[in-house]
Amino acid sequence: MNEKEPSGYKDAALEAIRKADVEIGDLIRVTKKEEAYEGILIPRSEYGDEKYIVIKLKNGYNIGINLTSEMRIEKIGKGSKPAFAAPPPPEQNAKLPKVVIVSTGGTIASRVDYRTGGVRPALTASDLYSVVPELASIARIDAQILFGLFSENIGPHHWAEMAKAIAKQITEGADGVVIAHGTDTMGYTAAALSFALQNLPVPVIIVGSQRSADRPSSDAATNLIGAVTAAANAPFAEVVVAMHETSSDTSIVFHRGTKVRKCHSSKRDAFKSVNTTPIARIQNQEMTMLTEDYRKRDKARKLLLKPEFDEKVALIKFYPGMNPELIDWYVERNYRGLVLEGTGLGHISRQSFEPLQRAVGKRVIVAMTSQCIWGRVNMNVYNSGRDLLALGVIPLEDMLSETALVKLMWVLGQTADPKETMELLTTDVAREFSPRTLPEKTDIE
Amino acid sequence: MNEKEPSGYKDAALEAIRKADVEIGDLIRVTKKEEAYEGILIPRSEYGDEKYIVIKLKNGYNIGINLTSEMRIEKIGKGSKPAFAAPPPPEQNAKLPKVVIVSTGGTIASRVDYRTGGVRPALTASDLYSVVPELASIARIDAQILFGLFSENIGPHHWAEMAKAIAKQITEGADGVVIAHGTDTMGYTAAALSFALQNLPVPVIIVGSQRSADRPSSDAATNLIGAVTAAANAPFAEVVVAMHETSSDTSIVFHRGTKVRKCHSSKRDAFKSVNTTPIARIQNQEMTMLTEDYRKRDKARKLLLKPEFDEKVALIKFYPGMNPELIDWYVERNYRGLVLEGTGLGHISRQSFEPLQRAVGKRVIVAMTSQCIWGRVNMNVYNSGRDLLALGVIPLEDMLSETALVKLMWVLGQTADPKETMELLTTDVAREFSPRTLPEKTDIE
Repeated sequence: MNEKEPSGYKDAALEAIRKADVEIGDLIRVTKKEEAYEGILIPRSEYGDEKYIVIKLKNGYNIGINLTSEMRIEKIGKGSKPAFAAPPPPEQNAKLPKVVIVSTGGTIASRVDYRTGGVRPALTASDLYSVVPELASIARIDAQILFGLFSENIGPHHWAEMAKAIAKQITEGADGVVIAHGTDTMGYTAAALSFALQNLPVPVIIVGSQRSADRPSSDAATNLIGAVTAAANAPFAEVVVAMHETSSDTSIVFHRGTKVRKCHSSKRDAFKSVNTTPIARIQNQEMTMLTEDYRKRDKARKLLLKPEFDEKVALIKFYPGMNPELIDWYVERNYRGLVLEGTGLGHISRQSFEPLQRAVGKRVIVAMTSQCIWGRVNMNVYNSGRDLLALGVIPLEDMLSETALVKLMWVLGQTADPKETMELLTTDVAREFSPRTLPEKTDIE
Repeated sequence: MNEKEPSGYKDAALEAIRKADVEIGDLIRVTKKEEAYEGILIPRSEYGDEKYIVIKLKNGYNIGINLTSEMRIEKIGKGSKPAFAAPPPPEQNAKLPKVVIVSTGGTIASRVDYRTGGVRPALTASDLYSVVPELASIARIDAQILFGLFSENIGPHHWAEMAKAIAKQITEGADGVVIAHGTDTMGYTAAALSFALQNLPVPVIIVGSQRSADRPSSDAATNLIGAVTAAANAPFAEVVVAMHETSSDTSIVFHRGTKVRKCHSSKRDAFKSVNTTPIARIQNQEMTMLTEDYRKRDKARKLLLKPEFDEKVALIKFYPGMNPELIDWYVERNYRGLVLEGTGLGHISRQSFEPLQRAVGKRVIVAMTSQCIWGRVNMNVYNSGRDLLALGVIPLEDMLSETALVKLMWVLGQTADPKETMELLTTDVAREFSPRTLPEKTDIE
C-alpha cells in the first residue's frame, strides 16, 4: 500500500489495551457504567483524538468509545478473522478467454487484515479465487497489483501509468482488462483511459464497490463477476465502468467512460450515465447491448496508446460571489487550460469577463460546461453566453465538466499547437459528445 | 435593466442593413445563393463578430447569417411586434389575498422590445395582467421591480437587498411574496433567502422560467400562476422554489429553498429537490402537501430579518490534479470560510492536507460536502475522512454544496465568534440538513 495505514494506539489508549491484554483483531467486551459493547478491536486512525478505542460491532458498525476511568475491557475471544492463507489456485480452463485484473486500490481491492491491522489489496489471483470462486468458470484470470490507493489520491500521472499497464496486457494477448478502482474518482479515471487508449481491440472494464467485501451488503463480488464476464465476452471494445444498475444485485450496467459520474455518496447504484444511456447490461448472467452504436471487439485491431496528460489545467466551479482574481491566479501560474463549470446554459458573472479576456489573450484555452450536469451548454441564447463566446470561451456541448477537465489535460498533453488544440478539444474522440437528438430552439435575448 | 443591452450593428453589417432600409424588428428576407431565410431582424451582441446579422425565424430559432457580397436583404413587413401598451388594470377583488411580485430579472421577467431592441422587465402589475390575466382571479397583485439582472450576475449583496425588500412587503401586510428570478442561480438565492428570512409568517415563492414568455413552449405563465396561487393560499410559510414537476404543464412543485438544485440546462422540470421530496404540488388548480413536516402559515408570527452575508467564503470543487496552493491563496486573501466539494463520502487528496491544516490553524472554517450531490457525507468510514475530521474539517451531512456555501457566508455574517460559528453551521436552521432515515452503517478501514 502506498497509503499510510497506522494500526497503533498511543498513550492512554495503548495503555488501556495493554492492561487488558488484548490486541488488534481480538473480540472484546467494553463495559462503561450500564452500557456494554462487544466487537473486534480495530486499528485507529493517525490524526484522531487519542483517548478512544474503536471496535467493529457484529452488525458492521465501527464505533469509537471514549476512555474513562471506570471503563473495563475484557478479551472474550479471538474473533473471526478472515484467513488470508490462499487456497491453491483452481485448474485453469485453457479454452476460456484470458482476463487481466489490474488493481489500483479502493474498497473493492481492500480487506482489513485483523492480525496486522493493515489494509491490504486482496487482488492477487489466488485471493480473488478465494473470495469469488465463480471467476474460474468465466475466464483465466491474471492479476496485477499496480497501486494500493484510495482513489481520491489518484492523479493524472497515475492515469498515464494505468494506460501503459493496460496497453501492455492487451499487447501481450489479454482478451479483456479489468481495473479495480476506488469509486471516488472512478469517473475521472474512466474518462482519462477513454482518451489515452484509442482504437481498442478488447474491452477495458473499470470496476469498484460501494461496500467492502467483508460486509453482508457488499456489491464487490457481483460487480467483479459482471466486470470479468464483460472483459471476457462482451461484444464491445470500449472503456466502461461496471457497477450496479439498481440497489439490488440483479443487474450490472456498463457506462461509457466519458459519460459516467458518481451521483450518490453511498448507494450501490451510485453511478449514472449522463445525457445518454449505459451501453450494456448483464442480467441473469446474460448480456444485452442497449445501443447498436459501439466499437466492436476485434483482437486484430491495433491499440493506440496516448498516455500524456498536462496537469496545468484547472476546473473552476462558478458560484455567486466568486472571486474573479482566481482566473488571473491560474494564468500567472502558467496554466494552459481552464474548464469553467458555469450556470445553466453556460454562464458566469460579468465580473469575470475581464480576467477571462486576459487569460484568452495569453493563449490559455478556456472551455465552458454546465454545473446543471444534465443538458447541454448553449451559449447562443443569452447575451452572457454570446459575450463569452466572443471572448473566445469554447462551449463543450453536453460534456460532463469532469470529462472536460480530463480531456483538456489530455489534449494539451498531445499538442502545443493552438489550432490543433482547439480542433482536438471540439472533435469527438471517445463519445464525450452526444449527438443532439433534436435541433434545439434558441431563445430570445 | 442593469445589463448592457446594445442593439446596434457596426461597420459592414450596419451598412448592409442601412442599404436595405430595414431596422430592428422588421420582418426581412435574406437571400444567399439558393438559400433564403425569413425572420425578424434582432439586435446583435456587443462582443460578436461584426460580419453577420441575426434574425429570429418563425419557429423561434435565432440564426446568424454571415455577410457576403452576393447576399440580398429585403424588408417584407413590419413583423409582429408585441404591444407593450398596458391595458387598464382589472378591477381588484378586495376579498382576495394580497400578493407582491418582486422582480429581479431573468427569463421570466424579460421580453424583447423589438422596437428599441432592448430587453425590459415585463413585471409591472399592468404588464403582468396583460400577459397572465388569470392572476386577477387569484390575488390582488402588487408588482415591484427590484433588479433587472440575469441571475449569473446576482451575488450575496443582492440576496441581502432581496431579503430586505421581501421583509418590508411582509411587514406591510402582504399575504405572500413572489420573487421572479433567473433560473441559473435560483438555487443559491433560494438558500440565501431561507437563512435570511427566519420565522416567516407567510410564504415566499421564488419562480422562474426556462423558456421565455414569447415562445409557444414557455413555462412562464404556468409557473407564475402556480407561484401566485401558493403565495396567496398555501398552508406553508417557507421559502420555496416553484417550477414544473415534469416536462408537461400539468403540475407545479414547491421545493424547499435549501434543498433545491437546477439539474438540467434547458428542460422545464430542471429543478429537483435533493435528498428529500418537494413539500407541495399544484395539479388541476389544487394544492397537495407532500409532507406533514412544514412551518404553518400564521400572519401573526413575527418575521426575523437576518440579511448579512460575508463574501469571504469560497466553494472549492476538488478534482484529481487540483493545485493544493489554491487553499493557501484563499487563506492569504483573508478568506474566513472554505466549503470543499469533495469526492464520495467527503474526501480530497492527501496533497491538500497540509494547506488545510494551515487554514484551520488560521481560524478559517473549512467544511466538507460531496460532489456526488445525492447522499450524505460520512467521514468516519475511511482514513482520508477520519484524518480530515482530525484536521478540523467539518462534515455537513447531506447539505448541498451550494447551500453550504451560502450558509457559511450567512453564518459568518451573523457572528465573529468561532464557537458560535461552529454551532450555527452544524445546527439545522432552515431544513438544510435532512434527518437520517436509518442509521447508516460505517464501513471498514
